[in-house]
Amino acid sequence: MAFPRKTIYIAVIGTGGVGKCFLSQLENLSKKFQDDQSLPILSLILVSRSKNLLFTPDYNGISFDDLLISLNNSTQCQLSIHEMIDFLANAPSSAVLIDNTSSQEIANSYPQFLAKGINIVTPNKKAFSGSLHLWQDIFTAATKSGARIFHESSVGAGLPVISTLNDLIDTGDEVIKIEGVFSGTMSFLFNSFTPTEGAGGLWSAEVLRAKELGYTEPDPRDDLNGLDVARKLTILARLSGIQLESPMSFPVQSLIPKELEKVTCRDEFLRRLPEFDFHMEEIKQTAEKIGKVLRYVGSVDVVKKEAKVSIEMFDRSHPIAALKGSDNLISFYTKRYDKGSLIIQGAGAGGEVTAMGVTGDLLKVVKCIS
Amino acid sequence: MAFPRKTIYIAVIGTGGVGKCFLSQLENLSKKFQDDQSLPILSLILVSRSKNLLFTPDYNGISFDDLLISLNNSTQCQLSIHEMIDFLANAPSSAVLIDNTSSQEIANSYPQFLAKGINIVTPNKKAFSGSLHLWQDIFTAATKSGARIFHESSVGAGLPVISTLNDLIDTGDEVIKIEGVFSGTMSFLFNSFTPTEGAGGLWSAEVLRAKELGYTEPDPRDDLNGLDVARKLTILARLSGIQLESPMSFPVQSLIPKELEKVTCRDEFLRRLPEFDFHMEEIKQTAEKIGKVLRYVGSVDVVKKEAKVSIEMFDRSHPIAALKGSDNLISFYTKRYDKGSLIIQGAGAGGEVTAMGVTGDLLKVVKCIS
Repeated sequence: MAFPRKTIYIAVIGTGGVGKCFLSQLENLSKKFQDDQSLPILSLILVSRSKNLLFTPDYNGISFDDLLISLNNSTQCQLSIHEMIDFLANAPSSAVLIDNTSSQEIANSYPQFLAKGINIVTPNKKAFSGSLHLWQDIFTAATKSGARIFHESSVGAGLPVISTLNDLIDTGDEVIKIEGVFSGTMSFLFNSFTPTEGAGGLWSAEVLRAKELGYTEPDPRDDLNGLDVARKLTILARLSGIQLESPMSFPVQSLIPKELEKVTCRDEFLRRLPEFDFHMEEIKQTAEKIGKVLRYVGSVDVVKKEAKVSIEMFDRSHPIAALKGSDNLISFYTKRYDKGSLIIQGAGAGGEVTAMGVTGDLLKVVKCIS
Repeated sequence: MAFPRKTIYIAVIGTGGVGKCFLSQLENLSKKFQDDQSLPILSLILVSRSKNLLFTPDYNGISFDDLLISLNNSTQCQLSIHEMIDFLANAPSSAVLIDNTSSQEIANSYPQFLAKGINIVTPNKKAFSGSLHLWQDIFTAATKSGARIFHESSVGAGLPVISTLNDLIDTGDEVIKIEGVFSGTMSFLFNSFTPTEGAGGLWSAEVLRAKELGYTEPDPRDDLNGLDVARKLTILARLSGIQLESPMSFPVQSLIPKELEKVTCRDEFLRRLPEFDFHMEEIKQTAEKIGKVLRYVGSVDVVKKEAKVSIEMFDRSHPIAALKGSDNLISFYTKRYDKGSLIIQGAGAGGEVTAMGVTGDLLKVVKCIS
């Protein structure tokens, strides 16, 4: 790669698990770029999190040394989104916003960033799985201004899921169906509950164990309601040309028992969950009787323009049954891959791999705008 | 994507299985681009195969209507590689050479194309798995001139293998090991010979069956010698930073019995192959005794800087054991994917999917140079 030596200005919002990993990856990347005369200079000009802001109004770049401490000690006033857009739009050359938050408010402002020519890279699912209106606004603004928006990590973290789907479509393949395990938590839960070998525990016990091992959200109901999977599926369906209105506009099987839906307290929920083990046990035994296992899968039927998230039965030799640990697996059934499917498999969550998807996208933007 | 309306000049060499599929994909792509004012115009200015050449000296573009018939009837004299380079280097704007041949001669000239700023997209393994000297010349020339060279389809056809490996490395992950089934033929042979369920046939019978079903080269020895896998492994090893001298510079287990190495006639080879079934049967039974199956895998140990191609034993639940049909599977073991691996799986051969990798790469070049 030979780039003319120019500067690309980078703003990063969010310094949580993914944000911290990304900043560390960005530090290494910017050093590598600095040392190679054929590459542009990557200049970090803004870092922000809910309560703190660090930015260089003169576009001179922030040092990575003790960056998080400097951010913590910063007395700069938080910029409004409008001010941030102005700041980035006025940068001496191309700017990239890296949104490592899961903020709906920031996602809602993407069209404004893009309209001003500011490129965006983000793992924030909210922007692409919320209202169809926002989705359309985002891509219309990008097309008009020529700004790039990449969001590989919004599905399957660093796994090449979105880039593969886009490549299939852009090269003229016809996607027939997308099916997979899109949640590390659900993968872990079902791989333990109905393993291909051995018996597995009771459902409520597996939920507790997954929580104790850190595989669930602090409140496991945030996984069990299926919304996270529905959001990812919404993104893939829309990329496949299906105009899903929202992640609530198709069938999503919630694993929160109806009788516990009104329980507000997490601990009460977990205490009462064993009352409903008989139900999950029943489904498990039905599957076992015909030699199958259960997995929690999302699928998009591109031909019928339908999506759904549900517990399904699989032969033990099926790749989805054979999943290990908390791995994700996404199968693309297409016209060209007619004898099977194209499968991407691996860890679909975690700070480092999610940040990797973000860094990979940043590199793609850099290649485009250098 | 918003591109300024410019023209990108495309030359295609090779109209075999992959070449024909690619030309059909290019035709669709160029129509799509033509209709979208925000995209550049893709202009086909040269098509060539061993005996025929069709090109427009005035860079006006060739019609896709009855293209192969026009090529067949063309009376234009074949250009030398030097003349072809001149022609493309003098195009009014960026040019891309698509090499859909497996010609070593054309591969050898890549550095000259690249030095003149001509971008290259190719599935031709010879360029990247031949001498290390050629590999170095190619990438040095590309870096110097800024021309792009993409070769996704040189490993695993349209599967996102090379792009994924490059993304892992470019974002700072550490690749520890790459392991996989890199040959559709070998996949089919071993999935039939030692299936996860059932017995499988004798080795020589499986080879004959695979040949009859069209899963092998016309002479199956071209698959059984392991060179095709060794070439793909050489490419992945070099991308991982291991300077392998050639595909002959590391251990490759040939499945051509020593006693038959000097047999020149294919049919004699196939007739005598059953004499050596006892040997393969022995390995198979050794594996079966400990509940395992055999697969023909290539692996790169990036830490030890070693590569090898050999028959290995796998648990029946291992993703490599669970392969179906003639699918390829490539596992990346890395520092970030520390709890398992990142797996890419699917058809790794065939005209349409190989051409898709080429078309996908062309789109990447177009995005970079528009």
